Order: sequence, then structure tokens, then C-alpha cells
Amino acid sequence: MPTTVYDPPALPEGTLRVFPLGGLGEVGRNMTVFEYAGKLLIIDCGVLFPEEHQPGVDLILPDFEPIRHRLDDVVGVVLTHGHEDHIGAVPYLLKIKNDIPIVGSGLTLALTEAKLKEHRVRPYSLTVREGQIEQLGPFELEFIAVNHSIPDALAVAVRTPAGVVLATGDFKMDQLPLDGRLTDLRAFSRLGEEGVDLFLVDSTNADVPGFTPLEREIGPVLEQVIARAPRRVIVASFSSHVHRVQQVLDAAHAHGRRVALLGRSMVRNMGIAADLGYLTVPEGVLIDYKKARDLPDDRIVYMSTGSQGEPMAVLSRMANLDHEIEPGPGDTVILASSQIPGNENAIYRVIDGLTKLGANVVHKGNAKVHVSGHAAAGELLYCYNILKPRNVLPVHGEYRHLMANARLAQDTGIPAERTILAENGTVVDLKDGHAQVVGQLDIGFVYVDGSTVGEITDADLKDRRILGEEGFISVIVVVDAATGKVVSGPEIHARGFAEDDKVFDGVKPKIAAALAEAAQSGVRDSHALSQVVRRTIGRWVNQSLRRRPMIVPLVIEA
Amino acid sequence: MPTTVYDPPALPEGTLRVFPLGGLGEVGRNMTVFEYAGKLLIIDCGVLFPEEHQPGVDLILPDFEPIRHRLDDVVGVVLTHGHEDHIGAVPYLLKIKNDIPIVGSGLTLALTEAKLKEHRVRPYSLTVREGQIEQLGPFELEFIAVNHSIPDALAVAVRTPAGVVLATGDFKMDQLPLDGRLTDLRAFSRLGEEGVDLFLVDSTNADVPGFTPLEREIGPVLEQVIARAPRRVIVASFSSHVHRVQQVLDAAHAHGRRVALLGRSMVRNMGIAADLGYLTVPEGVLIDYKKARDLPDDRIVYMSTGSQGEPMAVLSRMANLDHEIEPGPGDTVILASSQIPGNENAIYRVIDGLTKLGANVVHKGNAKVHVSGHAAAGELLYCYNILKPRNVLPVHGEYRHLMANARLAQDTGIPAERTILAENGTVVDLKDGHAQVVGQLDIGFVYVDGSTVGEITDADLKDRRILGEEGFISVIVVVDAATGKVVSGPEIHARGFAEDDKVFDGVKPKIAAALAEAAQSGVRDSHALSQVVRRTIGRWVNQSLRRRPMIVPLVIEA
Repeated sequence: MPTTVYDPPALPEGTLRVFPLGGLGEVGRNMTVFEYAGKLLIIDCGVLFPEEHQPGVDLILPDFEPIRHRLDDVVGVVLTHGHEDHIGAVPYLLKIKNDIPIVGSGLTLALTEAKLKEHRVRPYSLTVREGQIEQLGPFELEFIAVNHSIPDALAVAVRTPAGVVLATGDFKMDQLPLDGRLTDLRAFSRLGEEGVDLFLVDSTNADVPGFTPLEREIGPVLEQVIARAPRRVIVASFSSHVHRVQQVLDAAHAHGRRVALLGRSMVRNMGIAADLGYLTVPEGVLIDYKKARDLPDDRIVYMSTGSQGEPMAVLSRMANLDHEIEPGPGDTVILASSQIPGNENAIYRVIDGLTKLGANVVHKGNAKVHVSGHAAAGELLYCYNILKPRNVLPVHGEYRHLMANARLAQDTGIPAERTILAENGTVVDLKDGHAQVVGQLDIGFVYVDGSTVGEITDADLKDRRILGEEGFISVIVVVDAATGKVVSGPEIHARGFAEDDKVFDGVKPKIAAALAEAAQSGVRDSHALSQVVRRTIGRWVNQSLRRRPMIVPLVIEA
Repeated sequence: MPTTVYDPPALPEGTLRVFPLGGLGEVGRNMTVFEYAGKLLIIDCGVLFPEEHQPGVDLILPDFEPIRHRLDDVVGVVLTHGHEDHIGAVPYLLKIKNDIPIVGSGLTLALTEAKLKEHRVRPYSLTVREGQIEQLGPFELEFIAVNHSIPDALAVAVRTPAGVVLATGDFKMDQLPLDGRLTDLRAFSRLGEEGVDLFLVDSTNADVPGFTPLEREIGPVLEQVIARAPRRVIVASFSSHVHRVQQVLDAAHAHGRRVALLGRSMVRNMGIAADLGYLTVPEGVLIDYKKARDLPDDRIVYMSTGSQGEPMAVLSRMANLDHEIEPGPGDTVILASSQIPGNENAIYRVIDGLTKLGANVVHKGNAKVHVSGHAAAGELLYCYNILKPRNVLPVHGEYRHLMANARLAQDTGIPAERTILAENGTVVDLKDGHAQVVGQLDIGFVYVDGSTVGEITDADLKDRRILGEEGFISVIVVVDAATGKVVSGPEIHARGFAEDDKVFDGVKPKIAAALAEAAQSGVRDSHALSQVVRRTIGRWVNQSLRRRPMIVPLVIEA
């Protein structure tokens, strides 16, 4: 179902334009652009992690193309919280233009700046907090506290003469959050009374019925597992989940264990969180992992990365005995994390490896050691009823999530024609409380691979999938330039195909014969000759082996 | 953690030997060999479906190598039920020796024979039913009814002078099964009183607490969804799940709809099931799908394959508008199936595609439209308590499943040293009620790819993974045989790497220079020269692009 692309009209005076460049129809690379009176405001600039049909890709960026020529008009990038899918593409944007101001809460900016430092970019930044109001060009921004699986997350209200927009960022509504910082429903109420013209709302868990359980329900489970563990405990979770780590620190402390942090991002992020006061480290509980080895086994908790089965992360390496900490019988491993779809096989390989080494593995499947960071359907209904927005634009999610969110909005009485099911690139214009789709931009995937950005194309990925599924066969023939006669070869090499190149002995005479026939009928062009080679061996492979490898013929004239 | 391989001793007289060739440490390719007095008995011979780290592979077979030279000694292959992971490798075994008798229930053999027919093999077969006792060589076999997600499944008791073994096959203990055919706990009790020396027990759901819900709880949900559906209904499930299809037929019939079967395996399997009386088709409910198009939309149910998001199956093709039945607004799609780990992304792509077309998609995540076919922990405890086996060998499952099952056995009082955690190839000898590990055979993966069996090796798959992740660069240089000087080239081609070969312009002089230097120092051997090429371009790609594609250098002497 290719999307019909059409240009929006020139932006009429007094109208606010909103267009997402990422995050719709996918979970990741969130980025939305607001345009008013010739100026642009960006909310979030994150990355998407590739799926198995995008092999070898490191990251996927939002498509900056529609605004690339207008970066001078950008008044700022507001970052709602510090997760990769909201901040990860900032370095790539600032590499194009490094003086675009970034705006966010203390923790959000600290995490973004650490990332920018790795890319050697020093940003212009403006730290804000809940309740604060800032004017950026024609946009008046009000920041509102929301609760999420990382501290210091913010929703943003954007006021322009054309109307008021509220963007939630990622959020949930934990009513007993560990840090006491609730999603500010009073502010939502006040905005609702003022009138919200367009509501951009997190859809990630819109198809999950009911309510996300409390983060604090996990603490007692962690504590019980740690209390009963006979030897070492290894906890793996997301390296930005400050509250989860807090609960591990507290549980370890309560049972006389010390905690060593493992994994570069875990050490870095928790350092930042502790410095800024988001993480409260009980006196003397942290220990360097090299010193932790001298402690008795039942006095240690390792807090590590790798909960998604990532092959290079600490936990996978432990499971493969490729890390200096080698789990064994009596050790307890807790995966205090979700299983992101697509990662299940990798995660279960790690669980099996650890189980085989004798460790007791506790995970989401057998204990309550994780809750989601996103509002479920029940929570979203509260939001709609408190806000009563005039128009709704579900964001952050696959199509089924956006659709489920739109249905929830409609259940609270918002008319279907005012719930906009958009895609990346859909252009929505807002004026006088009326939101309307006026265009559809062409949005592509921008692949980061090694040090290259946007050079790998979908055609390359298609080649990779063929190569990865079937391997390739290269055929090199040297022909006499004058007569077209085979001088040397065909030399045939295959990779990813079959161990023994002898399998090709049968086809070599066929290729030579096909080339001779072509030469006879006057074909001299080396490209045309290489097509003869391709057809001959392609047909043979398909018929005799029922396979379709990539075929790379090369006819050299000598 | 490589397994230590060691040969078992020659089999002592009066001893029964048991060794699994597949199905342990994995979910699939189940196959276990029993040896007594020089004769072999095989239970099950299934296939394993590849994971993402085995790209391009069609199927994985059990490793026949340990018995390949002894196929004359095989007295029979007992098939416990008709699922692919228990019967799928039979054609590959019978292609090696086609007169090995296959033994199983009516439906199991009918499904196996349909499969063999496609491979043009006509088997020798013996149809058995529950309660029946057969002597095959030195093995006395008793067949016992078990309940599973396909009708007519059997457990097998194997009696030899060395002791009694009970193998469950796949099973659960639905206490109100649709066909009234219970897992025969009376027979289990009788065997328990006689004394079971070794219990081979299904571990698939051993780590799931509690009890598998009743299959019949799904019927009312299906009926409700179908009753409320405003237009067409499309149900996708496993093509062998006769009882699930039965419930769909009944629900459709109750609401005045007709059912069209879609997908080759669905049509074939349900034809077999109906012919043999396992599927009861309400009078006039089935309709050919070509004729179904003439019915009003609210009179149709399509019953199709593709519930796992398989790209070539009916449901995926519908979601891509690549099937003559095109789902649209008002249509209802029910995925009445599990999500096999690793398939989630593919399944969700199908769900999103269908949602986008306007269909209402009902699946395991939002309605109770699937229950498992395997006994959960609570049911396994019943088995252990009723049987009180002397020794337990958990089979069918990843290591975590086998371990969970062993723990359940131990919870019922079976000593840890009598619960054997085996792998594929582990050799267990049984005599006088004592089971002991006596050897570990070397068991490999046998890959089917196209028409080839066992030719694709793990090295090929590693090459495919590199090619699939990074693509390849081929470099061809023609050198003068005498002087080593470059006559033509380097010609560089890349696939799956970057769109534009111009990126290589910078490295060509480096390659020429490196070859000149090598020639200078007397290197003439074309293999050595190609290594020079490999090193030069490899270092350049890694440093300048931070990537590691496969490099295929070829130096031709002219």
C-alpha cells in the first residue's frame, strides 16, 4: 500500500502546520515539526532500531529532507525525555547545523550532551522544568511534568495564534511514582479548560487494556529474589531506567549487598543521574566491579546492560563465558525489563545459556520484575476526558497502536473526523480549532551504517537480504577482445552457498558453450556477454539445486 | 559451551540404550532412538524451522549420522502425532532407506503419507490405535491416548527385558476435550503400578505455571466475534489444528455463514481429517472459495493459513493486497493461534497491514482466541504423581524448558540424580531400574536448502550472515605472470554495500601501489597477491567507512 504523496499548499497566514518526520507507523525515531509564520519548531529527534529485514544497519534516522533547506528557520529542538528514540538523532541533525538550540529538562539535556560529546558536537542548550513557559520565535511553550520510565520527562504545550497543541511525549500515569513526580493532570485540566485544539498523544500501549501496574510493585519482588539468592545476583535492565536501578540499589542495600555497575552506558547514565540528584545512592553501596570480586558471593549484586539479548552487551557475553564474570550454579540472574518485539529469540538464547551454566534466571515470564513505561488504554481514557481536545493526532506507534488510540478518543465522544490517523510526512494544518490533512510528504528511511549516513539504500538492503539468504556465485571469464573466444576461465567462486566449488564442474562447459555461441552470432560487448553468463548459470542453479543466489558475472576482455 | 563428545561403550547384554538425535535444547526435529539386542526403534522424526541466524535455510533435520550405517537394524519409526516437528523428516529418512516401517495412528499416518507422496516415497506402514500392543523386534509397544492440539496423538510405552520406558510425545491434559478423547491417566496409573523405569516427557510448557485453559473456552469467543462481525470474517490458524477449525465451522454454521478453506495445507489436511472422521463438517457449510465471492459479505468465513506471518502464506498476501481476496473496512480477521517466538515482527507486520486496510484484527493479544497444545507445570505434576517414574528424561524443549521440567519432577520427590538433563546425542543406558549417561555423540545441524540436504554448512551460514549484514566487495586484478605488474584493473564491484562504486576511486591507487611493492619484493604467487589486495582494501574500508564487508579478491595472471 504505497502512500500517495502530494505537496501541501503554501502555508496560509495565521495557520499552524504540524508534520511528523518519524514515529508514526513504527516505534522509534520520533520527530515532529511545527511551522508558524515562517519559523519551525521541532519536538524530539530520535532513532529507530532496525528490524531483521534491515540487516547490518546500525540505526535509522528520521528523514530530515523536508526541512534540510530550512534549518535556518528552526527556533529549537524540544526534547521530551532522554530515551534514544527521542534524542538519538540529535547529533546527526546538529552535524548538519550545529547552532540549533536544544531545549529539555536537566536529565534529558545531560544525557543528550553526553551523546553529543561522543560525536564532538557542543550544543546551544536551554534547560527547562515543569511549569516553565518559554517563547521560541512565534511559539510559546509550556512544559508539564509527565511520568515515564526515565525521570524528568516533560509534555509540551505549544501556543500560537492559530491554536494550542499539547504533545505528551512518552508518558504513563503511575499514581504512586517512586520520585513522587506525577503526570500533572491538574495542568492537563487547566489546558483543557483553556481549550486544546490538537492533542498529540503517545499510542505505544493504546491496545493494552486496563492500567499499567505501579513501578513500586517491582521493588518487593526484586527484594525477595535478592534476599533468597544463595550466591551472586546479576540484574539486567535498560541503562536509562533510573528508578529500576534505584530499586535494585535499595534492595541490595537492605540485604547487605554491594552493587557493581557493568556496561559503558549503565555506568555513564547512572553517573549523570546520581550527579543531578535523580538517583539516590545509599552510602557505600556502590563498588567498582574489579573490587567486587573480592567480596563473598552472597554480598554482591551486578547491575548490567544486555537485557534485550544484544550480542555485544555484558549479559550475552556472560552467557557465552566471554566476560570475566562467569555465572555458575547458585547464581541468580534477573532480567528486569520488557522483551522488545523481535528480540525474543536473542533474549531466550541468553536465558538458555545462563540456565545451562546453572544460574537461576528470573524474568518477566516467571516473575513480576517489569512494568511498562507507557499509558495503557484505561489511562488514555482519563486523558481524553480531562482534556476534551478538539482534535486528536495519535503518535508514537505502529499503525495498530495509532488506530487503537483513535478508537479510545472516539469512545470518549471525540468525532471520528477529528481523530487523525496520520503517517510520517502527513501534513496537518490547524486554524480556528479545525485540523485538516493538507499534504503527504515523501518520507524515507535514512540508514546509519558504520560511519556512513543515508548512503545505504533500500536496494542495498534487498541485495543484502538475497546475499544473506542465498549467498552469491561469481563467474569470471577472460575473452579475446577481437574474436570473443574464451581465453581463461570460467573461474567460479561461491560464498554462503556450498562448501565445495566442485559442484560447478558440470556448468563450466555450458558457460563456455553459451559464450562461444554468442561470439559466433557476433556478440562482443562485455556487458552483453556477462548477461549470457548470468542466464546460463542462473538457470542451471535454479534447476539443479532449486536455489536463487546472487550471480555476479564478469567478462574481462584481454 | 561446547559439549564434550565421547563414545559410549559397546552396549552390554540386557541393557536398553536411549539416545535423542533431535528435540533437546530446541523446539523441533524431535527424534529419539532406542537400542536393544542389536535392534533399533525410532520414536518421531521431525523437522526444526530455522531461526534468523540460519538465513536461507528451509528446514533443519535431525542428525541421522549416528545410525546411518545401521538402518538395516531399524525395526520401525513410531510417530506420536502428525505435526511437522514429529513427522517432517520422515521423507528424508525414507529416501535413504525406503522400507523402514512407519507406525502411528490413522490421522498421523494419513498426514505422513500425504507428505511422502510429495516426495514420491511409498512407505510400509502399520496403523495402530490407543490400547493396542505391538511387538517390533525386541520392543513391545503399547499405545496410549493423549490429548494435544491435533487429534489422534499417542504416547508410547516401550517394554524390553531391561525395563519399561514411557514417551509422552507432545501432550496436554484438557479435561473437557472437544472429541472426548482424554489423555489416558488410567493407563498412566496402570503403567505406574507396573513400574516405569524411564519417563520421556514433553517439556515445551514446563516453565508455564498452572494449567493450560480448555480448548472449548475458545468456541464462545470465536462465536461472539463472528456473530458481531458486520462483513467478511477471515480466520487464520495452524493448518493441522482440526479442533480449532471445527470450532470455526460450528460458529460459522450457527450464524448462517459458509466457510471457504484457503491455503494448500489447510485444504489438504482438512480433507484428510474429514475423510477419516476427525472433522465433522456441518451439512452444506463448506464452499469453494471461488464461489464464496458471490455470497453477501456477512455470510462468509474464510479459514486460512498464515497465522505466523509467513510471507508466502494467504494471510500475508492478503495484507499486502497480493491475493484475490482483498480485506477492507468492516472485515474481521481473527488470528486463532500462538505467536511462535521469532515470528512476532512478521505477525505484527501482517496485523498492521490488515489494520491499515480497515480490518478489525482480533488476536491472542486482545482476545482469548488461542490456547496452547502442551501441558503446563500443574499438569506435569499430575503426571509425575500418577506415574512415579524411577528416572526422568525431559525432552522437547530449549534448555530452560528441560530444566524447569526436571525441577517439577524433583518437586514430586524424584531424586535429582534420577532426573537426567540431556542434550541431543546424550546416550543413556537403562538396566535394572537404573538409568545412566554413558556417552555423548557429536550431533550437528543438517540443513535443507532448496534441493540440497546437508551440503550447507555452518561456515556457509556464517558467510551468509556476513554477506547479509555487510555485503561484499570483489576486487579483480589482472597481473603479468612474469613481472607481477598490473596489466588491468583493479576492477572493484560491491553489492549490498553502497549504491555508488565511485566510493572506491580513492583506494584503487593504494591497491596498485601495494601490488607493485609486493611484485618488487618478488611475490608472484597469485594467492599471496590476492591476500595483499584483501589486506589493503579491508584496512581502507574499515578505517574510512567503519564497516567490515566480505572481501573477495581475485588476482588473475595473464
